[in-house]
Amino acid sequence: MEKVDGRLVRGDQTRRAVLRRAVDIASVDGLEGLSIGRLATELGISKSGLFAHFGSKEELQLATIRAARRIYADSVVVPAFAVEPGLERVWKLSEYWLDYSRRRVFPGGCFFQKVSHEYAARGGAVHEALAGVHREWMDLMEDVVREAVERGELDADPAQLAFDLNAYYEAANLASILHDNQAGYDLARQSIRTRLESATGTTLRW
Amino acid sequence: MEKVDGRLVRGDQTRRAVLRRAVDIASVDGLEGLSIGRLATELGISKSGLFAHFGSKEELQLATIRAARRIYADSVVVPAFAVEPGLERVWKLSEYWLDYSRRRVFPGGCFFQKVSHEYAARGGAVHEALAGVHREWMDLMEDVVREAVERGELDADPAQLAFDLNAYYEAANLASILHDNQAGYDLARQSIRTRLESATGTTLRW
Repeated sequence: MEKVDGRLVRGDQTRRAVLRRAVDIASVDGLEGLSIGRLATELGISKSGLFAHFGSKEELQLATIRAARRIYADSVVVPAFAVEPGLERVWKLSEYWLDYSRRRVFPGGCFFQKVSHEYAARGGAVHEALAGVHREWMDLMEDVVREAVERGELDADPAQLAFDLNAYYEAANLASILHDNQAGYDLARQSIRTRLESATGTTLRW
Repeated sequence: MEKVDGRLVRGDQTRRAVLRRAVDIASVDGLEGLSIGRLATELGISKSGLFAHFGSKEELQLATIRAARRIYADSVVVPAFAVEPGLERVWKLSEYWLDYSRRRVFPGGCFFQKVSHEYAARGGAVHEALAGVHREWMDLMEDVVREAVERGELDADPAQLAFDLNAYYEAANLASILHDNQAGYDLARQSIRTRLESATGTTLRW
């Protein structure tokens, strides 16, 4: 049985507070912008205490990616999986994605788009972790599309449709942050609708 | 008449060498990764000499953006504008864009996608410059599509089609750098073809 004493609880709360601040910072300034010194100062924790939790900057970056992945899953995947598999889930996944970006769940917009560009052309464990999340996400989208195809609700190549939908999400997210407006979301919503209507041969009721 | 003595020519050559190195560095490590000290060391130039050229890190960043814009224009826009306006130019613009990313004209892939994500959620002159280039690029794409619509070669809303095409380019670029493979380009090429065929009602001969 896990021993849960006051110190462990406080340690866990500290870890969570640090990571919540770290994902927000990284979504604006990147994972390179994370430093144990900066976090310690901002949260009023000792640097040595933070080192005890994360050991190194790279460990902190990897823990930040895992924390962001959970927040992303809770914001986009969990609600979309609350509806039945099929076309409606494809649509919901798109709605929740645009909503996740628009609501600024992370202040800098999509955490993963931000830091994936930061580390795309570099090597190392952070790059590998981000490539893994990207692959996992594209596989998930492909599966969601495939279910709709297998139910006869869509006529599409799953990898192709997943690529297109994800491209609209990402382009809307970047345009919205860069120009601080909503125009990209309207364009993306229309793109998604047109793309799904051409793959169903019908007019969607949403 | 401009006075062109040996010193000015050397100064101009130095400036060009610095900026060529700066765009390459920034495409991998970001504009934040540019430092006058690092460039001086790598190029064997004195720091004070570099300061004489650029004055400050922000000046260097802005000059780097202008230099990258010229390289981008030469790689993508100029060759596409060598063909007649209309559907073929829309297709060529897409071909040259994917080719620009695939050939790694910048070692980190598309310079603008990289650094626009870096500065999207920050304020300041660098953000403004990048938002300006993004707007200019989207306007240019929209104009190229509009010409094809006006010639009766496409049936599409120019802003919508420009958004979609650009989204495919960007998604392919990120996937290719992150996973170091070509799969994203094949998906993007197919997306572009399908999107243009649905806007022409015909099968494209390319």
